[in-house]
Amino acid sequence: MTAEGQARRSTATGSNMPEINSERLWADIIATARFGGTDRGGVTRLTLTEEDRQVRDWFIAECRSLGCTIEVDRIGNIFATYAGEDPSLPPIAVGSHLDTQPQGGRFDGILGVLAGVELIRTLKETATVLRHDLTVVNWTNEEGSRFSPAMMGSGVFSGASHLETIEALTDRDGTTVKAALETIGYRGETSVGHVAFGAYVELHIEQGPLLEASTTDIGIVTGVQGVRWFDVSITGTEAHAGSTPMTQRDDALVAASEIVLAVRDIARRHPPGVGTVGFVAVGPNSRNVVPGSVQLQIDMRHPSEEGLRQMQAALEQAVAALDAKIALDHIWSKQPVVFDPVIVEAVGDSAKALGYSAAEIVSGAGHDAAHIAGICPTAMIFIPSKDGLSHNEAEYSSPEECARGAEVMLQTVLQIDLK
Amino acid sequence: MTAEGQARRSTATGSNMPEINSERLWADIIATARFGGTDRGGVTRLTLTEEDRQVRDWFIAECRSLGCTIEVDRIGNIFATYAGEDPSLPPIAVGSHLDTQPQGGRFDGILGVLAGVELIRTLKETATVLRHDLTVVNWTNEEGSRFSPAMMGSGVFSGASHLETIEALTDRDGTTVKAALETIGYRGETSVGHVAFGAYVELHIEQGPLLEASTTDIGIVTGVQGVRWFDVSITGTEAHAGSTPMTQRDDALVAASEIVLAVRDIARRHPPGVGTVGFVAVGPNSRNVVPGSVQLQIDMRHPSEEGLRQMQAALEQAVAALDAKIALDHIWSKQPVVFDPVIVEAVGDSAKALGYSAAEIVSGAGHDAAHIAGICPTAMIFIPSKDGLSHNEAEYSSPEECARGAEVMLQTVLQIDLK
Repeated sequence: MTAEGQARRSTATGSNMPEINSERLWADIIATARFGGTDRGGVTRLTLTEEDRQVRDWFIAECRSLGCTIEVDRIGNIFATYAGEDPSLPPIAVGSHLDTQPQGGRFDGILGVLAGVELIRTLKETATVLRHDLTVVNWTNEEGSRFSPAMMGSGVFSGASHLETIEALTDRDGTTVKAALETIGYRGETSVGHVAFGAYVELHIEQGPLLEASTTDIGIVTGVQGVRWFDVSITGTEAHAGSTPMTQRDDALVAASEIVLAVRDIARRHPPGVGTVGFVAVGPNSRNVVPGSVQLQIDMRHPSEEGLRQMQAALEQAVAALDAKIALDHIWSKQPVVFDPVIVEAVGDSAKALGYSAAEIVSGAGHDAAHIAGICPTAMIFIPSKDGLSHNEAEYSSPEECARGAEVMLQTVLQIDLK
Repeated sequence: MTAEGQARRSTATGSNMPEINSERLWADIIATARFGGTDRGGVTRLTLTEEDRQVRDWFIAECRSLGCTIEVDRIGNIFATYAGEDPSLPPIAVGSHLDTQPQGGRFDGILGVLAGVELIRTLKETATVLRHDLTVVNWTNEEGSRFSPAMMGSGVFSGASHLETIEALTDRDGTTVKAALETIGYRGETSVGHVAFGAYVELHIEQGPLLEASTTDIGIVTGVQGVRWFDVSITGTEAHAGSTPMTQRDDALVAASEIVLAVRDIARRHPPGVGTVGFVAVGPNSRNVVPGSVQLQIDMRHPSEEGLRQMQAALEQAVAALDAKIALDHIWSKQPVVFDPVIVEAVGDSAKALGYSAAEIVSGAGHDAAHIAGICPTAMIFIPSKDGLSHNEAEYSSPEECARGAEVMLQTVLQIDLK
């Protein structure tokens, strides 16, 4: 933050504006990283495991000690509510998730929950009473690494998924979601979707390099990219690498390489879209055999449905133009999400009032907020990720970056509370 | 063969010229395919196995019955010699190998040995006595699929490898070459390289599509391509496929794809060179992760050392031009082989005299003849491979194609015998 920014912030917050405690928030980040902590400074805390139970218990104990009421619903989502003045108003919700990827980091997900706890602490110690209830939510299984799909708890809560279907899903060992919830004692009594929030704000690390690269403090997240997944199967002719002339080859890997570059080029032509070939399997995969088959997996994303449509059309055209036998299958998609302009504006205004540099950004990754946006006014706040890393033990955001995010979240909640 | 060709052949061979028996040769091909025969009509007869012993025993019994003397050297090479008029002249040798790849075919290798047996039968039944001894050779372990390197027996015979080193090599089960030779009773008494041949002629299937594509009966093999192998290691930056903008990616697979296409383009620019990327390993190989690492294996071949040098230089230039961290290692090479022009001419003249269509061709695959070319005048004869297939149960050459190859081999031997 610049000196000018600090000056503006002092003006904006004034003397009686509550401010979060940066050191207390950082201490919580360090403290909770022990639940599933790895030797290399990361966290492996898969959903509904013993480690997940430990961090959930910690979260509930902290919130109870602050005077919150606790509800746990049938899918294990936890709602810690700090009462406001007017019980007739819908609660304002903040939060994220406490689970991680295997060998994940200390910030992805839990930052948004811990910032919510810090907000309540700040409100309590400054004796600030909101008009609305403030609910801090932990959504079950955002990561999707033990049970698929990801964003499971928010999916059921928002009505995107059916509880019974989700409860019956199994992990690799055959354990159902329902059994896993019961084992750790988090199959709650509250019916899923029991409350209608007035708004939802989620603080999260960017998981990308944009904020860091532009030395921007705060990402004002305007939405979540849509996704389309494609499987590609290329059938060439397996042949002797020595005795098959170049003119008589039907090399599946050459066609695959054209597709990899086409995906890159298509994404470049449709900014801010992205396109990735992340998976390749070559048959027979032997140095001196011309490849007879290649499988590719493609991930394409764009903030608009029209952008996705154009990218898919360009991909189909590129594949059709190749002189090879190629099957292109569109196997899965998720529509783009556009966040509520009022909440987005509140985030931007809060960042500005605090003197932080801020820029609008579209989330490349999926988040619980994408589900919740379907049922109430929603937005997200991003803070920078060092080297853009996430799902990685080296994932890092500084104490200052985390604190700025929580500050913006607090100011956003205060603004929404006035509306 | 055209009617004109048949007419020319009748003229060329005359009434007293010996002719091979096409049906007898085909019957031998069918008969020997039972040693290691597979359900799908192929052959699995790895070197120095029980199946290899069976076909070796058959070969020796057939040759003994024709009056040949048999020698087996320390590396298991078998020499069946049909005596000529003048024992002071060096033997003319023909042959190839009796071992196959796993799930290999009925023609690769054994055709050249069986054609040799058929030559002796023909000489015997027509009471034709050559000036030189005629030796039919089975070289041990041409394929290299059980024990590496390939072309083992001819390698030791020609002095390219040392017997003691080769004897100590092991298969996957830890069995040494020496032990495997002893187990099947083919560690012979004759010292390796005991005889200097006057010439060596090897008949083989093309293992490529050129002859079939141009409806050419006979390939006059002028040499064997040189080979250079490269390993490529590309280090990019593993990143989130959703949240990493195209402008900030360091995608190892994109660089790898550029290299695959560069190898193809370089080979096209250096005819008749060939270039293949046959092996790809991507890390972490997950659809929604930008690849952080890729390993490639490259095979480049050209009939001339200068061609290989130019191809390697072009590859190094292409790799250097890419904006990526790439390690390119030249891990192995084999120099091109140029066959003896006199023997090559004899093959061409024989094909022409028999009225067969024939074209000069460079072998893309390695052969025992490549080793033997280092110690005596050598050439090879190719016949068409259906669909260019080899190392494959569906490998096929017709009875007529096999017979034409044997006819050309016989005429070539007769021509050499006169010199």
